[in-house]
Amino acid sequence: MATLRNIKLTLAYDGTRYAGFQRQPNGVTIQEKLEEALRRVTGVDDLTIAAASGRTDAGVHARGQVVNFVTAATVPTNRWPHALNGLLPADIAVWRAEEVSPEFHARFSATGKRYRYTIQHGPFRAPLTRLYAYHHAHPPLNLPRMREAAALLVGRHDFAAFRSTGGAAKTSVRTVTGLEVTQVGDLIHMDASADGFLYNMVRIIAGTVLEVGTGKRSLDDVQKALQTGERTLAGRTLPPHGLCLEEVDYGPPPSRA
Amino acid sequence: MATLRNIKLTLAYDGTRYAGFQRQPNGVTIQEKLEEALRRVTGVDDLTIAAASGRTDAGVHARGQVVNFVTAATVPTNRWPHALNGLLPADIAVWRAEEVSPEFHARFSATGKRYRYTIQHGPFRAPLTRLYAYHHAHPPLNLPRMREAAALLVGRHDFAAFRSTGGAAKTSVRTVTGLEVTQVGDLIHMDASADGFLYNMVRIIAGTVLEVGTGKRSLDDVQKALQTGERTLAGRTLPPHGLCLEEVDYGPPPSRA
Repeated sequence: MATLRNIKLTLAYDGTRYAGFQRQPNGVTIQEKLEEALRRVTGVDDLTIAAASGRTDAGVHARGQVVNFVTAATVPTNRWPHALNGLLPADIAVWRAEEVSPEFHARFSATGKRYRYTIQHGPFRAPLTRLYAYHHAHPPLNLPRMREAAALLVGRHDFAAFRSTGGAAKTSVRTVTGLEVTQVGDLIHMDASADGFLYNMVRIIAGTVLEVGTGKRSLDDVQKALQTGERTLAGRTLPPHGLCLEEVDYGPPPSRA
Repeated sequence: MATLRNIKLTLAYDGTRYAGFQRQPNGVTIQEKLEEALRRVTGVDDLTIAAASGRTDAGVHARGQVVNFVTAATVPTNRWPHALNGLLPADIAVWRAEEVSPEFHARFSATGKRYRYTIQHGPFRAPLTRLYAYHHAHPPLNLPRMREAAALLVGRHDFAAFRSTGGAAKTSVRTVTGLEVTQVGDLIHMDASADGFLYNMVRIIAGTVLEVGTGKRSLDDVQKALQTGERTLAGRTLPPHGLCLEEVDYGPPPSRA
């Protein structure tokens, strides 16, 4: 009998024309495209993959999504990217393949993730970044105050106020290990790292930090949102197209200080 | 009779789904979309615009295209961007409007232009920049040598070897005032400034500098291409989607040192 190997892939995609990552009856998904390509390479019809972040919404992008699958195919590990990229559409690409231990699971083995939310801040929309950044025209943003709001969210907290209904998580306590606000030209990036994220958590954090930047919300509101878990005290959920999954970590879990 | 005003607009667009800037029978163009919007704002049916760089090819982008048009409309100058952006598709945006003297012509008054050509240099394609950067996988690039090749092209030269047939220019002598090669992550930008460019000149310059970077061409080839005007000594024409018109100058012309 053939040896089974567990293959970990790191991939990037432009989520614009997909109904999210995970297979679903209505709409084309990244998972569907990737599994189609894997079936053509392996000749195995019922091949399925596990993804680090399966339930990403329609329009969300990735530069560091991780998946794994088990296969008897004898494709040399370093050939997987080329073999798959030749079959995938131009808006999905495999950047890395590694053979991992049989216990590795892209989702359950993950110890942390980093997402980036990008805001284009300028009086008019920018056609060349419109698919990857949320346009904020006015009022002007107070970046130092946005950084203060971000600092309040770092640490181990109950993020009940920063989740949408629909997530299956048992607890809403998470450890945010970093939340950096940086500006490059007319783009404002918010890089959020945590041991895990609740449903829509990054988009609500981005909305909250943005609303602190416009003066619509105070630092006190952010504190109270963390303390009370009241969704109405946090900001609105910013649209999906500004969000990108940058990285999934599989090292030791972040310290729970 | 109404006062006629000459309005200069600066615009940005994603050229991906257009057949270039200039109106033509086959395919939708930026000019067509912009003139449609202008007609709806002004109510004037035969309004036409002049563009700094009308003959940009299908797929070429802009962050600093300049056009002008003459109108009797009483729209306050600073309202033109908002009025037009509300009618334009998301991949075209007006960033600035100025009232200029009656003699101003977007094309004939231009004294210089800057284009950027962007190459994505990495083993695999990048879905999130695929529409705006040309993917080069291998061989690896020698950036210092690319900068030496770029330096050879700066100055007043006959660029006959760096043009495609089809241009209407009487002389192929141009003054390249700058050609900078910079790297940001996996992107290599080539910023070319000149008093004017021949047909496909930036894309051929980019192809030549790239081929010097891979070792396919030598610095001597570049010198000889300039001296002899032989097209075959220069590099290939890189595809349009890596090209972006960044800026048009209307100041005093560059010195012809």
